[in-house]
Formats: sequence, C-alpha cells, structure tokens
Amino acid sequence: MAGASDRPIGVFDSGVGGLTVLKELRRQLPGESTVYLGDEARMPYGPRPADEVIAFTRQAMAWFAEQRCKLVVLACNTATAVALETVRDEAAVPVIGVVRPGAAAAISASARRAVGVLATTGTVRSGSYLRALRDLDPLVDVVQQACPKLVPLVEAGEARSRAAEDAVREYVEPLLRDGAVVSPAVDTLLLGCTHYPLLRETIERVAGPGVRVVDSAATTALAVREVLESHHLRRAAGDAEHRVHATGPSDRFRQVASTIFGEELPLVGQVELV
Amino acid sequence: MAGASDRPIGVFDSGVGGLTVLKELRRQLPGESTVYLGDEARMPYGPRPADEVIAFTRQAMAWFAEQRCKLVVLACNTATAVALETVRDEAAVPVIGVVRPGAAAAISASARRAVGVLATTGTVRSGSYLRALRDLDPLVDVVQQACPKLVPLVEAGEARSRAAEDAVREYVEPLLRDGAVVSPAVDTLLLGCTHYPLLRETIERVAGPGVRVVDSAATTALAVREVLESHHLRRAAGDAEHRVHATGPSDRFRQVASTIFGEELPLVGQVELV
Repeated sequence: MAGASDRPIGVFDSGVGGLTVLKELRRQLPGESTVYLGDEARMPYGPRPADEVIAFTRQAMAWFAEQRCKLVVLACNTATAVALETVRDEAAVPVIGVVRPGAAAAISASARRAVGVLATTGTVRSGSYLRALRDLDPLVDVVQQACPKLVPLVEAGEARSRAAEDAVREYVEPLLRDGAVVSPAVDTLLLGCTHYPLLRETIERVAGPGVRVVDSAATTALAVREVLESHHLRRAAGDAEHRVHATGPSDRFRQVASTIFGEELPLVGQVELV
Repeated sequence: MAGASDRPIGVFDSGVGGLTVLKELRRQLPGESTVYLGDEARMPYGPRPADEVIAFTRQAMAWFAEQRCKLVVLACNTATAVALETVRDEAAVPVIGVVRPGAAAAISASARRAVGVLATTGTVRSGSYLRALRDLDPLVDVVQQACPKLVPLVEAGEARSRAAEDAVREYVEPLLRDGAVVSPAVDTLLLGCTHYPLLRETIERVAGPGVRVVDSAATTALAVREVLESHHLRRAAGDAEHRVHATGPSDRFRQVASTIFGEELPLVGQVELV
C-alpha cells in the first residue's frame, strides 16, 4: 500500500515558468514524484486583478487535492504574492511559495544590500518582495522593476530573440546606475518571476560581471525539503513518477518546456480547471 | 493557557557563533520567543570526533525538550554535519540545521558555479557541504578549506586582530587563484561556520569585490519560518521572551556576544549539560 510519503508534490504556475522550479525540485529530491500544472489557457497572471488570481489558484489547489498531492508549491510569483496566505489557510497540506525563498536568496547574495527585483506588474503591485526583503533586512535598498514584456516573450518561445534582449536592456539598465533609481546601484538582481530564469543569460550579459542574478529555485527546493522532512513526508528513494499538465493546447507548452527539460520532459496532458 | 505556538524556538551552538543565527531569527520572526544554548565549556566542536559531537548534541536536545521548545535550530555547522540526522530521527519536534540552508544560499549566489567553503576541520571532514552543494548542482566546483584558527580567535574576542587577518589571508587567498586549487577561481565564499560572520568584514576585504561572501543566517531563518507555518506553529505577534544560556563561565561569552547583539543581549544563565 502506498504511504502518505509516496504521494506526489504538486507544482503550479500560470504557464511554463514553474518548470524551472520543477527542474530544480527533481534534481534535489530525486525520489519524489511530481505533478505539474500550468494554467496556460489563462496566462499571463501578472496583469490580472488579485481576486481573479486568488480564484484561479483556488481552482488549482482543488485539482492538486484530487491528485492527492502531499505538498503544493506555488511556483508562480504572482500567485504567491496575492494568493499564498489565502490558499495556505484553506489547504489540508503544506503550501510553499516562491517569494520568501527568492528574497532569502537575494539577501544572501547581496554584498551592498542593494537588490533589484524584476517581476510582473501584479507582483510589483502587491509589494510582497519589498516586504519579504525588508523582513530579512530592514536596511536593504530595494528597487522593483515591472517587466510586462518578458512573460509573453518566454511563452512565445522568443527568449533568445532580439526583442527579448531589447526588453531586458530597457528594464535592467536603469537599475545599474549609482543613484539613478537606487543609491547605491544594485549588486544583485532577483528574478521575481519563474519565467525569467529562461532569460538568465541575456540578463547576466546586460547586468555585467559585478551583478549577481539570483532566482528562487534553489531556496524554494530547500524550503520544500525541510518542510517535507519535518512532517516525515520525505520520499528519498524509489521510482518517481512525473506528470505535466496544462490547461491550454499543449503544443506550444511542450515546445517551450523542451528548452527547459530537453529530452526529459514528461508527457503533457490537458486538463480543465473549474 | 499558552498554546503550542507560544513555546520558544531553541537555538544551539558550541559557543557564541550561533548568536549570528539567533539575531537573524529574532529579526525575521519578531513574535517568537527563543532559548539559546552555547556549549561554551566544551567548545570548539570542530576538532572533536563525531561520536562526541553526537553525544553532546543529544544532551542539548534533551535540555531543549525540558525547555519545551517547539523547534530546535542546530546553529552549529559541526553539529549539523555530524549529528543532524541522528537527533532529527529521535526528536519529537522539527530540527533545522544550517548546512543545507548555507549550501542553498551559496548556489543561489554563485554565477560561475564555483564555491569555496570555509569551515571547521570537523565539518570539512564530514563532507556534508560537498554533498549538500552537489545535491543542489551536480556540476558545481567546490573547494573546502578547513580554518581551525578562526573559532578560537572569535571566541577569544580577537575577531578584529592582526592575527585574525593573517589567518583569513592564509585560508582565503589560495581559493582566489584560477586553476590553483579549483578551476575556475571561486566567485562565492560560503561561511560554513556560524562564528565566521563575525569575521565577515575581514573576509570580504581579503576576497575582494568580485567574490560574494554568503552565510546561512537568512536561509536558515527561511527554513524555520516555512516549517513553523506548515505546522501551524508560527507565533507572529505578542511579547516575545529571550533567554541565553551557556555551559561555561558567562563573562567571556557575554563579552563576545555583546559585539553581536550590542545592548540587546538577553541575560546569560549558566547551565550544565548531562
């Protein structure tokens, strides 16, 4: 009989971005089965009003409960920023977001305590990174930069295009000048959206060698592992099963996803959220 | 009547080093009460054999159970490296170590995936940072450097001395040359001992601006917070109580501790571990 620890970890995103977190989880927790859900039909979440994002995230949580997940990761910064507290109170299993892990990674990496946050409009508007970073260090200088062009570019499979580079320059360059937006200039850029690691090379090139570009993947996986172990729900060994689902047509999803997973991408099934 | 969430968080170290973690915990979780125990009478742990460190950590866990702690942080890398798995299996409450949080911070911060680990002899010998870093990124280049002179210098209140600077140079400089010990040169130094943040300024100056110096404090606090919330044991508000205990004479302990906490240092009581 399968025990509670054999149940899968649920991973949720508005689209393909959360696959960057899934990849890290699978690398760090190779014995764990996973179920991924990308709400491709309704992405991007960034520009949506908060009550809509909360409603969609609740639907996803109900779906993960049907899949008997033992823990759910909101691998979407927008959903974490506006819906985590609500769904955490309602859920029967632990729910881990990506905002506090991302903030902890950035605070760890920043020598001058000056952090730039690249995020969606919804995440910036929520102020959740600002709060998470200041909880960690009340004296940190934070500048948030909304990057509305980036998720659509990644979802269109254009992460390596000239348009993507132009957009990154537009968003990143103002954060690099001493005193222009923040004083001193940021020495750390936090990728406050799980789609952005797919633009990491471009962002690192634009930011230059003095700036660390950090994401939430490693620290989110740390939080998942510590929480699982504290609940005696860790599954360290054995064959793991991986399923990937999207709410929209899976062709484009599969194509972009393959740039993240290569040959390893598990099958994509289409589901409807209600 | 006090509920389970009102119980304190226990924080353990071989000496004063764990106070750097305690400080971060108190900053991030201001509603939580804490009980600190520094095994000053038997420090340093670094050179001790594993079975002795396990025995001492078990004694500390029994003492924290008497204090009715709801969670214990092993804010000592040596104790985490050799005793975490054992005491975690035996404890009735969650136990959080500092090795995996530190590794996650370093992996987040390293752009070239080349990390130098400064740690005690015992921690280096255990290989636990090597495993934790490779779990996170199998391709990471890791060089471990045992730094046996540093804990005694910090515990003697000589963190700002010429002797401390000489010792830091001896340990750090070999890690900064391309191909000398690791190829490429490390771009991130992980402070793999909770005493070392008290030498941070010196280490940063020796390492230079291209190297990030990261510790486990922020990511350990993240793990504590996520685990507490997942168990509904978080205490977000209300008057918090803080107690600090040492196993040895408290004078030197208090003096070094005041360089970490300034005026805020709670009273130090002496206890005996059996």
